[in-house]
Amino acid sequence: MSAITAGILTIGDELTSGDRVDTNSTWLSEQLLGLGIETAFHLALPDDRKSIADSIAESSRRVQVLLITGGLGPTEDDLTRQALADAMGESLETDDRALALLKARFEKRGMEMPRRNVQQVQRPTSAAMIPNALGTAPGLRAAINDAAIFIMPGVPGEMKHMWAEHVEPALRQLNDGAQRCLTTWIHSVSLAESKVGELLEDLMQRDAQPVVGTLVRDFVVSVRIRAAGSGPDVEDLVVTAARTVRDRLGVYAFGRDDDTLASVIVRQLVARSASLTTAESCTGGLLGSMLTEAPGVSGVYRGGWVTYSNEFKIDLLDVAPETIEQHGAVSGLTADQMAVGALAQSGASFALAITGIAGPEGGSSAKPVGTVFIALAFIDEDGEPSSHVRRFMFPGSRDMIRQRAAITALAMLHFHLANDGILPEMLGEYRPRVEV
Amino acid sequence: MSAITAGILTIGDELTSGDRVDTNSTWLSEQLLGLGIETAFHLALPDDRKSIADSIAESSRRVQVLLITGGLGPTEDDLTRQALADAMGESLETDDRALALLKARFEKRGMEMPRRNVQQVQRPTSAAMIPNALGTAPGLRAAINDAAIFIMPGVPGEMKHMWAEHVEPALRQLNDGAQRCLTTWIHSVSLAESKVGELLEDLMQRDAQPVVGTLVRDFVVSVRIRAAGSGPDVEDLVVTAARTVRDRLGVYAFGRDDDTLASVIVRQLVARSASLTTAESCTGGLLGSMLTEAPGVSGVYRGGWVTYSNEFKIDLLDVAPETIEQHGAVSGLTADQMAVGALAQSGASFALAITGIAGPEGGSSAKPVGTVFIALAFIDEDGEPSSHVRRFMFPGSRDMIRQRAAITALAMLHFHLANDGILPEMLGEYRPRVEV
Repeated sequence: MSAITAGILTIGDELTSGDRVDTNSTWLSEQLLGLGIETAFHLALPDDRKSIADSIAESSRRVQVLLITGGLGPTEDDLTRQALADAMGESLETDDRALALLKARFEKRGMEMPRRNVQQVQRPTSAAMIPNALGTAPGLRAAINDAAIFIMPGVPGEMKHMWAEHVEPALRQLNDGAQRCLTTWIHSVSLAESKVGELLEDLMQRDAQPVVGTLVRDFVVSVRIRAAGSGPDVEDLVVTAARTVRDRLGVYAFGRDDDTLASVIVRQLVARSASLTTAESCTGGLLGSMLTEAPGVSGVYRGGWVTYSNEFKIDLLDVAPETIEQHGAVSGLTADQMAVGALAQSGASFALAITGIAGPEGGSSAKPVGTVFIALAFIDEDGEPSSHVRRFMFPGSRDMIRQRAAITALAMLHFHLANDGILPEMLGEYRPRVEV
Repeated sequence: MSAITAGILTIGDELTSGDRVDTNSTWLSEQLLGLGIETAFHLALPDDRKSIADSIAESSRRVQVLLITGGLGPTEDDLTRQALADAMGESLETDDRALALLKARFEKRGMEMPRRNVQQVQRPTSAAMIPNALGTAPGLRAAINDAAIFIMPGVPGEMKHMWAEHVEPALRQLNDGAQRCLTTWIHSVSLAESKVGELLEDLMQRDAQPVVGTLVRDFVVSVRIRAAGSGPDVEDLVVTAARTVRDRLGVYAFGRDDDTLASVIVRQLVARSASLTTAESCTGGLLGSMLTEAPGVSGVYRGGWVTYSNEFKIDLLDVAPETIEQHGAVSGLTADQMAVGALAQSGASFALAITGIAGPEGGSSAKPVGTVFIALAFIDEDGEPSSHVRRFMFPGSRDMIRQRAAITALAMLHFHLANDGILPEMLGEYRPRVEV
C-alpha cells in the first residue's frame, strides 16, 4: 500500500516476562497506518544488549522505518542506547547540549542531577537527540543503511508526546506524497465468522482492493474494509465495498464503525419511541450492563430484574410455580413467562428474558451446560402481548456462555426491530425449535 | 534460569494494524515463567504466509519452544497452518478424526458444517492436532530441528483452555528437571498501586529474593511473589513473603492466586449462611454480573434490581419521591433507600446499592461525572436495618467509572464482612463523607 513499511521494537524485561502488556506497539501501528505506513512486525525483547543490537541491525535490512520504545532510563538495565551504538558500529558520546538541558531540568526542581542520569544524554556519534518535554530520557534518531530509526521512551505518555512533537512530523516528510489509508467497519452478529468469510469470499481475496478482513470481538464479527490512496476515488472504493458487505450480510449486519449492538438498539427504540426492560437469570445483569454501556440509553431503558433464583422469578415476575416444577427454571416456558411478566410489571414495549445453564455445574443430558432460552416479549399490532422464544446451545466456558447469551438476546431484539418482527436463523440456535 | 528458552509468535493483521492489543503473548510468558521457561521474544506478524513461514523457520533455530497463536480460523486470511507446512517443507492434509469431530460439533448444534471450516482440520503431514474443547479450531503440535512448536487459537478463552489442557502438560515433560519458578499472588482492592508500592518498598528491591512486583488489572492491585529454585526452601521463601505482604496490606488484601472479589464474598457469605441482593442504577447490572461470575453464587444470591430510572427506584424499591426531588437520584439518601428497599423486598441479609453519574452527560458542578454513591444495607445485632453509605469520585471514562463503582461496592461488602462491620478508608472516597 505504501513504499514504506515499518517495524516496531519494544524493549523491557517486564514485557517478555508477562508482567506488562505492550500497548505502545498497538498505538504506534495505528498512528503509522494513518500516515499510510504499514507495520511489518512487532518485536518485544528483554533488556539484553546483544539481542537488541542484533534485532536493530537485522530489522534495518527489512524495513525503511524502525520505531523503538523503552530502555532509555537511567538504570543499568537500560541498554537501548548502547545496543543502537553496537548495531551502528559506533561508540557512545555525551551530547553536551542535551546534558546542559538535563542539568537545568534538575536545577529547576532544586536538585542536583544524579550521576546515573548522565547515560541518558549519550548517543552514537552520528545519531541525533530527540527532546523529551515530559521526562529525563531524550529520544534518538539515527540511520542504518536506508532505514530511519527513531527511539522513544517506554512510558506511554512520554512516548506519545514525543511521537506527536517530533517523530510523526519527520515521518510525514519521509513519506511525503504517499497515500492515506481509509478504514470502515461493518459489524455483524449471530453469524459464524466462517459464514461471513463464505459470504465475502471474493472480497476477501488477499490482493483485492480495498482490503477486506474480519475481526471477532465478544462474539461480534466485524468486517474491516481498508483502502490506501488519495482523493475521492479511495473514498468511493471503500464506501461501495462497505455497501456490498452490508447487503451480503443482510439483517445480520447491525452497524458500522463506532456502532455497538446496544447503541444501535437504543437508536431503533428511540426512533419508534419504544422502551425496553430486561429479566435475567444466568446472565445475572450482564444484559442490562451491556445495554447501559450506551450513553443515552436512559431514554429507552428504565431498568430490569435479575431473577437468579426461582423465588425471584415467581415473586417478582409472576412466573407460575407449576411452570418451574413441570418444565424447569431453564425452559422456554419459564423464559417466556419471565419476559411477559417483566413487560407487564414495567409497562415497557419490549422485554428480553434469559434463563440458562452457564455451568460449570447444573447440566443434564436433556439440558447440558450451554443450554440457554431467550424470550422477547412485546405488544403486537392488536395490542396483545406476544413473544418469540428461542432455545440455544452455546459452547465454551461459563463466561463465554453468559456473554453469548446476552449478545444473542440483544441480537434477537435487533432482528425483530430491523426485520418486521421476523427472526432469521441465529447462530447457536438449537433444533427443533421449542414450541410455547 | 532454565536450559529451555521460548519464543512467542502471534498472528493477525489486527495486531500489526493496531486494531487489537496482543494480550496472548503476555499471558503465555507469565505461564512459561511458572514452568521455569524464559521468553526470548514476542513477535507479532500480519496475516502474511511468507513472513509467518520465514519467522517460524528462523525462530526454530533460536529457541527450543515456539508458541504460536492466531491464524487458525476458517477464513481466507487464516494462514498459520499453511505457513507451518511451508516452514516444515511439508504439504497439508486433512485429519479425518478431527474432521469427524468438527462435523459432530456442528451437528450437535443442529447445523451443517460450513464448507470453509474444512481448512481448520488440515495439518502438515508430520504434525499432530491438539483438540479444542471450546471452538472449531484445533491446535497443532509439530517439530522443526530441536524446536517444539505449539499452535493455539488466537481467541484468548480458547487459547488459555488449550494451554491448560494440552500445552502446559507437554511442556512440563519437556522441561522436566529444570528449576521451577514458584509464584504466588496476593490481591488487594481500594488501595492505589503507589500506596501498595510504598507499603512494600523494601520487598520490591530489584535484586531481592523472592522477586516482588505489582500488577493492576480491573482496579485490583495484585502483588506477585516469585522465586526460582527447587525444594522446600523456595516454598518457604514464597510463603513467608506472601504472609508479610498480606499483613502489610491488611484488610485491603482480599485473597490470593485464583481468588476474585466475588468468589471471596461468596465464601464469606456461605460461612455465615447469609445472603445478598443488589440494586443498581448507573452500573445497570454490572454488579450482579460480576457476582454471578463466581460459580456457586446461587447459594447466596437470589437476584436483584436494575433501577435505572426514577420510576423503577420508586415503584420497585420504595425510594421516596421526595428523596429524589430534594436530593436527586444520585445522592446518599437515594442509595440508602435503594439498599434498604432491596433488603426489605428480598429478605436477604445484605443489600448493595449503586447510584451515580457515569457520564459522558449528566454531570453538574455539585455532582460532576464520576460521582457515585454506594450503600450497603444489613440487619444489625438488634435486628434493626442499618447501613453504610459512601460517596466516591471516580476518574476516567463511562466504562471505567462503572467498573470502579461495581468493584468498590463489592469491596465495601468484603470490608464489612472481614472487618467487623468497620469500613477502612477507601480509594476514590470523597470527603467530607455524606451524612444520611
